[in-house]
Amino acid sequence: MASWVCSSATGGSPWDDWPVPEPSGKSEAEPAAAMRARVRASFRRQVMMTTLGAELVSVERGRVELAIPYDARFTQQHGFLHAGAVAAVLDSACGYAAFSVMPPEAAVLTATYSINLLAPAAGERFVMTGTVVRAGRTLVVCRGEAVASGAGAPAAAGEAAPFAVMQATLTALYDRPGIRH
Amino acid sequence: MASWVCSSATGGSPWDDWPVPEPSGKSEAEPAAAMRARVRASFRRQVMMTTLGAELVSVERGRVELAIPYDARFTQQHGFLHAGAVAAVLDSACGYAAFSVMPPEAAVLTATYSINLLAPAAGERFVMTGTVVRAGRTLVVCRGEAVASGAGAPAAAGEAAPFAVMQATLTALYDRPGIRH
Amino acid sequence: MASWVCSSATGGSPWDDWPVPEPSGKSEAEPAAAMRARVRASFRRQVMMTTLGAELVSVERGRVELAIPYDARFTQQHGFLHAGAVAAVLDSACGYAAFSVMPPEAAVLTATYSINLLAPAAGERFVMTGTVVRAGRTLVVCRGEAVASGAGAPAAAGEAAPFAVMQATLTALYDRPGIRH
Amino acid sequence: MASWVCSSATGGSPWDDWPVPEPSGKSEAEPAAAMRARVRASFRRQVMMTTLGAELVSVERGRVELAIPYDARFTQQHGFLHAGAVAAVLDSACGYAAFSVMPPEAAVLTATYSINLLAPAAGERFVMTGTVVRAGRTLVVCRGEAVASGAGAPAAAGEAAPFAVMQATLTALYDRPGIRH
Repeated sequence: MASWVCSSATGGSPWDDWPVPEPSGKSEAEPAAAMRARVRASFRRQVMMTTLGAELVSVERGRVELAIPYDARFTQQHGFLHAGAVAAVLDSACGYAAFSVMPPEAAVLTATYSINLLAPAAGERFVMTGTVVRAGRTLVVCRGEAVASGAGAPAAAGEAAPFAVMQATLTALYDRPGIRH
Repeated sequence: MASWVCSSATGGSPWDDWPVPEPSGKSEAEPAAAMRARVRASFRRQVMMTTLGAELVSVERGRVELAIPYDARFTQQHGFLHAGAVAAVLDSACGYAAFSVMPPEAAVLTATYSINLLAPAAGERFVMTGTVVRAGRTLVVCRGEAVASGAGAPAAAGEAAPFAVMQATLTALYDRPGIRH
Repeated sequence: MASWVCSSATGGSPWDDWPVPEPSGKSEAEPAAAMRARVRASFRRQVMMTTLGAELVSVERGRVELAIPYDARFTQQHGFLHAGAVAAVLDSACGYAAFSVMPPEAAVLTATYSINLLAPAAGERFVMTGTVVRAGRTLVVCRGEAVASGAGAPAAAGEAAPFAVMQATLTALYDRPGIRH
Repeated sequence: MASWVCSSATGGSPWDDWPVPEPSGKSEAEPAAAMRARVRASFRRQVMMTTLGAELVSVERGRVELAIPYDARFTQQHGFLHAGAVAAVLDSACGYAAFSVMPPEAAVLTATYSINLLAPAAGERFVMTGTVVRAGRTLVVCRGEAVASGAGAPAAAGEAAPFAVMQATLTALYDRPGIRH
């Protein structure tokens, strides 16, 4: 029943374009610096990202890049980075891309994602980019791409083809006591 | 960032269990007969379901069965039912299963689904079942299964293995003027 | 266990880059005209595409565009095109994009796809584009985008944002008697 | 184009039922003890599973259970287990379920999966179960479910509803030098 009960011309939908009327009454957009600070503060609270050695490379509105180094603790049996580590960071890149376009008072969570693993995660450094495809009032859809670099990576030969791609659906939460961003 | 900004013990989430406080102030559950009538009325308004010859086989709270006959107009080049027809009806089965557990004033739409095609859609009749896995305030997750029967179907030999499976995420819409159920 | 048992430097994988050694012994690439003819011949055999009024707009190696008109027979209850019709054509666009990079003797089938419905399918004409993300010996991953145009479409206002996106996994079949392309 | 170029009655497909003719000429099924030893040996080589503290709870043909304890190193900012850890173990449960029905000489890799996060991963212990839905010659589709237990888990109240579900597509690899199982 995809899309079959959807907004009419007069109705809204979870896909209504941002910006949305903000509960606080502010209608002006959040400054970019404030948005970046908000993303960075949330990122620092994710212990698993720290454990994986993830770094927040860049934050633009609707686009976030994270990177992790090769780490033998997070490998599969051939010595490649485990897809679990790849998916965790790709998911976070998509999540923060979505978070970057949400109103400051919103919290974000991943509802679902689909990931395709295209090649072994071979290399020394892995950059995961999340990009917003469509942002609505409660749902944001992002695409993620993972690219490897360094010794052993196909990218070393000049190729920048992703070794994993993701399609993720994030939800915005409002007015939930006890939820930090 | 799946689940990384999620409800605390005191907060809610899109996955909060039904029943939810109903805007109309009614707290009692909707009678089963009313729920079935609500689902059937919506189903009748889907022209594409009529075009495909789809039939509403059964409606329980959280589980809906639809069926379509073989129809040469909706085939691929080997004469099997096209996966597009399969997906359309599976999606509707999941959508109505979700709709059946939503409050009467909610409308429903599919946010996203993932489908696996496991075998050709060979047979004379195809039953698609949608089942609610988890229902929250704004998001409902369902699983769908498609099974074939009749001449040519593997099920004719006693097997009832699905030839397609789906994992679908539906959203509930409230208070949207212009949206019928 | 995503990617955890994957090709080493000396091994192959389902994701090995095309071109692959061709069973027929030919090593030269298929001419573009032959590839296009192969895609068009297969498309003509899909009865459901004909029923939906689908048109093959363009065929490049790794990228295929299909289009369908608005048709009241394939609508949901608000008069928008049903997501089932959208998904069927998007899936075919991805499938033919994959088919276009496969060796001539291969057949193709969709193993699985994930679709996000971003907005109602409002408009008069809908263009679905499938693009190859990665092609391997047996698996090809594609992305699909659906864009609306004409009266009622958001695109009429100059926007070309997709109203649906897909991530699809196709498989190549070889040497299967009874399978046409 | 899902399923549109699929096996005829005389042709095979990636979804052909196991058992398949084994390259080694053996036609008898692998004994259960040998299958379990094969799965356990592969599991031990996954460093990331060791790092996460994952345990192989049970192995049946077509069904594998893994478990991980709560670990603060792999949490998100509210102290719940990070979805990345959940997905990594669910993916492995699906992967080993697929591996358990493959011929002994096959290797396995995840092509793609879709995961729905239904609730926070709250609790002390998390059991991830992978079950084969359909096994073919080269593709195996599995479903995964994650259930929490212990203090803080909804399951402590008697509920055993999953907090995450997965639909995964695995591929079997044959005759690839340099690939261990």
